[in-house]
Amino acid sequence: MTLKAIKYGNGKLEVLDQLLLPTQTKYVNIKGVEDGWHAINKMQVRGAPAIAIVGCLSLAVELQQEVYNCKKTLRQEVEGRLNYMVSARPTAVNMKIAADDLIALVNSLDEDETVDVESMKLRFVQAIERMLDKDVSDNRAIGDNGSLAILSGKKMDGPVRILTHCNTGSLATASYGTALGVIRSLHANGKIDQVYCTETRPYNQGARLTAYELVQERIPATLLCDSMVAALMKKRHITAVVVGADRIAANGDTANKIGTYQIAVVAKHHGVPFYVAAPLTSIDFKIPSGDHIVIEERPDHEMTHIGDYRIAAPGISCWNPAFDVTPAELITGIITERGTFMPTEIENLRYISRQHMS
Amino acid sequence: MTLKAIKYGNGKLEVLDQLLLPTQTKYVNIKGVEDGWHAINKMQVRGAPAIAIVGCLSLAVELQQEVYNCKKTLRQEVEGRLNYMVSARPTAVNMKIAADDLIALVNSLDEDETVDVESMKLRFVQAIERMLDKDVSDNRAIGDNGSLAILSGKKMDGPVRILTHCNTGSLATASYGTALGVIRSLHANGKIDQVYCTETRPYNQGARLTAYELVQERIPATLLCDSMVAALMKKRHITAVVVGADRIAANGDTANKIGTYQIAVVAKHHGVPFYVAAPLTSIDFKIPSGDHIVIEERPDHEMTHIGDYRIAAPGISCWNPAFDVTPAELITGIITERGTFMPTEIENLRYISRQHMS
Repeated sequence: MTLKAIKYGNGKLEVLDQLLLPTQTKYVNIKGVEDGWHAINKMQVRGAPAIAIVGCLSLAVELQQEVYNCKKTLRQEVEGRLNYMVSARPTAVNMKIAADDLIALVNSLDEDETVDVESMKLRFVQAIERMLDKDVSDNRAIGDNGSLAILSGKKMDGPVRILTHCNTGSLATASYGTALGVIRSLHANGKIDQVYCTETRPYNQGARLTAYELVQERIPATLLCDSMVAALMKKRHITAVVVGADRIAANGDTANKIGTYQIAVVAKHHGVPFYVAAPLTSIDFKIPSGDHIVIEERPDHEMTHIGDYRIAAPGISCWNPAFDVTPAELITGIITERGTFMPTEIENLRYISRQHMS
Repeated sequence: MTLKAIKYGNGKLEVLDQLLLPTQTKYVNIKGVEDGWHAINKMQVRGAPAIAIVGCLSLAVELQQEVYNCKKTLRQEVEGRLNYMVSARPTAVNMKIAADDLIALVNSLDEDETVDVESMKLRFVQAIERMLDKDVSDNRAIGDNGSLAILSGKKMDGPVRILTHCNTGSLATASYGTALGVIRSLHANGKIDQVYCTETRPYNQGARLTAYELVQERIPATLLCDSMVAALMKKRHITAVVVGADRIAANGDTANKIGTYQIAVVAKHHGVPFYVAAPLTSIDFKIPSGDHIVIEERPDHEMTHIGDYRIAAPGISCWNPAFDVTPAELITGIITERGTFMPTEIENLRYISRQHMS
């Protein structure tokens, strides 16, 4: 059974607190936008698709508790709350795109004179609820498209060995996952020999979260340190690398969890295909290349401590970027819900991608 | 002041317990070979040169407590104890070479009829004590040779930025260090802009030990995760990488802490020179290439826990090799006490290297 990181129904939202995994499985009740902002900022929820869904659902929950007498007030409320939500984790683009789309929707409902304030609220909340379903169906399509791309591209017969980084599974999305969705799809088809997941320092999303999902689903998997990828590729034939994306530029350059770029360099050296799996909402057509992506730097504490336990010498300075940018030329293919594309083909998806809120 | 990891004098040996760093600075009393074996096996002492020195000094301490009436008994005792000591950490070659040399010495003293049992023991203990002094003077020579190689090879003016991996400093040697000796020498000459040290998972020797030494010596330094090396090299101009070695094959292939090979691949991609710094005793002329080096695999527990704190999902399998092999073609130069050599020149050092016990 797929792990449910986001529980939503009857106007109630609960999210699995990922800071407590793998030792505790505990859900946090999100009563509105303020709770949603803090859960995202503290990284109780993480993963670009999950951030967008939880951010928007927390607004849906809040709206359902309120009574609005005036369409203009509702419109202003929505716009202010969404812009605030984007500030919780700025690098992931999905929340920003969702906010822009929802603001466009609320404006058009406001202008439509056939819609009263009650049905304006209802239709707006339903649009958010559709995001949840769409994320799951998109991820299943990504999984199947990725499985097809990897199986048709592989050079050797037999089951495959896939390396992944960070967490892109049920915990990073509404469920199923992007890169981990590809792995789930391969596994469902009996094609997985072994999955290798990196620890993903300094936050250990691989060791804590991806390993947790792989164990839960009984997919044969091995954990390795981030430093061991090259040694692994020299020792064993790895069929492909599949990772997620926090933001993809129009030229295919991809921002993802720190360490992704290094894996791409190492994969190229060993002739291993390198795939990015992400929904079209991860593509930011407004930025021409990865040079325009601002990288969030996180506190030293994440590197120097594990919980309260100090692991680094006192007094040492740290560099702790949360993401890096993998240039398009190191990417074999970008796996989306609409198919797998070369990075150079991404630009052509500009118009398809805008239809997702319709 | 350089940190003293090995204190020896008046027949007494104490070693700094590196498992307790950086939070506690505590010395362990080594009363003989049995204590030495356990300190090395548990990794209270680590680093190939330090292992050899502590291993041999623990024998010197033991011999000084005993009275021998017969040269043959002394010879047999020495041979048995040294062979046992080699088994504590098999990948590092320095202990094996030191044991072979000392066994040759004890045999020649046994055969020399002008030497009585008392002076046989004295001369044998003195030979071990000379290793300690020689390690310090060799490391200073390595430091100066490496500093010269890096400064003469660099493409840009101004002070240098050096990246290093694992711990190769006072804590891994008798004092001063190999790769960290090169950094100390550059710093003494006012040439360091910044040192970058990797955490070095899973044992965190970089975060715990190298960072500790760099902070103590006030060398400007920044800690980064093992996954961040490629991102760093893309963002900032790194002058060179300098690492140590656990064993160098006759063709220049180098076994060193896991992650070294990955850094070498990434350095090549970014055009950054990659140096190995090690005494001639780290070269194993008996093995033609790195393919013959057996890699120690360490317990899962080192990856899944930090102290008693679990950081990985229960039930996940781990792959935990302690070392990897960097092929000679990725190595710019091997810095030794006799100068800096291309990997292809290592073979020519075969005869020089055997003089070190004379």
